[in-house]
Amino acid sequence: MAGSTPVIAITVGEPAGIGPEISLLAAWALRHEMRPVLMGDAAYLAMLAQELDRDIRLMGISQQALRNNGLPGCGKDQITVIDCPLNAHVVPGQLDARNGRAVLQTLDLAIESIEQDWCDAMVTAPLQKSTINDAGVAFTGHTEYLAEKTQTKQVVMMLACEANQALLHPLRVALATTHLPLREVADAIQFDALLTTLQIIDQDLRQKFGIAKPRIFVTGLNPHAGENGYLGREEIDVINPVIQQARALGMDVRGAFPADTLFQHKYLKDADCVLAMYHDQGLSVLKHASFGLGVNVTLGLPLIRTSVDHGTALDLAKLGTGLADAGSMKVAMRMAADMVKRQAALIQAS
Amino acid sequence: MAGSTPVIAITVGEPAGIGPEISLLAAWALRHEMRPVLMGDAAYLAMLAQELDRDIRLMGISQQALRNNGLPGCGKDQITVIDCPLNAHVVPGQLDARNGRAVLQTLDLAIESIEQDWCDAMVTAPLQKSTINDAGVAFTGHTEYLAEKTQTKQVVMMLACEANQALLHPLRVALATTHLPLREVADAIQFDALLTTLQIIDQDLRQKFGIAKPRIFVTGLNPHAGENGYLGREEIDVINPVIQQARALGMDVRGAFPADTLFQHKYLKDADCVLAMYHDQGLSVLKHASFGLGVNVTLGLPLIRTSVDHGTALDLAKLGTGLADAGSMKVAMRMAADMVKRQAALIQAS
Repeated sequence: MAGSTPVIAITVGEPAGIGPEISLLAAWALRHEMRPVLMGDAAYLAMLAQELDRDIRLMGISQQALRNNGLPGCGKDQITVIDCPLNAHVVPGQLDARNGRAVLQTLDLAIESIEQDWCDAMVTAPLQKSTINDAGVAFTGHTEYLAEKTQTKQVVMMLACEANQALLHPLRVALATTHLPLREVADAIQFDALLTTLQIIDQDLRQKFGIAKPRIFVTGLNPHAGENGYLGREEIDVINPVIQQARALGMDVRGAFPADTLFQHKYLKDADCVLAMYHDQGLSVLKHASFGLGVNVTLGLPLIRTSVDHGTALDLAKLGTGLADAGSMKVAMRMAADMVKRQAALIQAS
Repeated sequence: MAGSTPVIAITVGEPAGIGPEISLLAAWALRHEMRPVLMGDAAYLAMLAQELDRDIRLMGISQQALRNNGLPGCGKDQITVIDCPLNAHVVPGQLDARNGRAVLQTLDLAIESIEQDWCDAMVTAPLQKSTINDAGVAFTGHTEYLAEKTQTKQVVMMLACEANQALLHPLRVALATTHLPLREVADAIQFDALLTTLQIIDQDLRQKFGIAKPRIFVTGLNPHAGENGYLGREEIDVINPVIQQARALGMDVRGAFPADTLFQHKYLKDADCVLAMYHDQGLSVLKHASFGLGVNVTLGLPLIRTSVDHGTALDLAKLGTGLADAGSMKVAMRMAADMVKRQAALIQAS
């Protein structure tokens, strides 16, 4: 971290989507709070910036220059762009597999930049899985790719939002399973993986969020958390034993609670994180409560990574620039910068 | 409906829980807006009323008198109680199977009262299934019991809440499946039942809520509504065809939408009802958004029935009177009375 200013690598995502636009807008808006370093096609971003706001000033450098000399200094009224050239001309709204590998390169560069200490954290704009797959690279998602590239066995997807007009406290929801067909969820709830998930949440809330003793509330898998076995046995057979084990290991973990009860404000206010068993059980509430300002955080990685909670919005990109909402991108950048500061403070204190 | 005042039958529920307390408090608070008619043990309710608020005035009558002479007149500062005597002394917080059959009798009486036109609608306080089962009567829940007693083949559970500080519009969430173990949900999503569910929602929103052309938004079963089959095929194989069929029948039904997207305010504002595929997908959001003021409405019955969205709270009952929150009971009563008025207006207009 250069002085006390977090340096945040931002991968601009699928070029035909709204990623480049929201990356530019958010970086420009927050340039006095942190140092954003965009990773994307410098020429395309320069052209787009001119369309969005003629005040935006970019400083492009090549990957070669970065590797030779590190990240150069940069005034507060300029945004650094590390050039990751695309292969094909960008038509907003229109996917082009020829650009798949260049998108992937921005992720590799962001990881390298953190490993090399040029940047402190990374924020990812949305990408389109099919563009990369169509370019001949097997790719199931940002999270899985980052885990593989950093040799991380298990990661945890968590969505977070700050307090707002309708939510008196921050809400963080982690998932025990993510992108699985619903009929496969029950069998995927297994003792070892669930215990590891709790350990990752506990560790990252301490180390990256600065919460001394995280209180983690766990939902049941079944309605009414199984109602003593009448509505399913996974709570009795797996989830409650895992919670007991986590408590025996010193973690403050409670549950399993019925999801529809737990997500009420009177219970949420005492939780630093809710661990939901599957995608729609947890994210429906979080996205409702976050008013479009949710942030996706990957826990368990050896680096700090946040991202927006929405997709590439190809339709919106097609309509022209200036229409996309950079709100989620801004809070993702702010959360990453906050995490960098908290982590630094903890390291200094230890 | 006596003049323009809806007459609302209120079954006070499990005697050892908070049902009798919230029934009394809500009935007393709303006695100028409607005519509440409590169904429960008159002596116990009289004793409880004295503990709660010495101003409360009750007028007890026997079931025999009701059957002989119908519902007698009653001033606005008195609440009618139809006596359904319990078998055993009530100890708050302590279940007693000897009272199971008396609880069931309140439900039978409420149905009879509507069929006989003594009352216009019924509101049920929470009961304890085990008390009734332990009394030797097979019983799986209010909803199923009312369906059976009124010879209704299929009913739909819907939860509703009014607009509040965090919700700019009413929210109604109906469920395609209710109290099933999660691993059984996917197989329970079947064409005919789902189509009937949509027809019941459409019909009841018209006839009991007075919504001329209900807009029903349907969630997918799988995360991201299956992502074109990559995350499950139920949307392609069942849900989308049902939606097509419903539209062909003239209903305004849309979807299937990813649940975490659909429950955002920008989409919800255009929906009169969301049909969720299962319990926690829909109710976690609704209970979060309703701030404890959700109402359970049973659609598809030949009568109007609402209830609270919480349980018997035996622990709270044990601690003493005056601790329970009658908020959900009040909104359940108000919603039932509103539905009576809307239904009457539609009948008059036709």
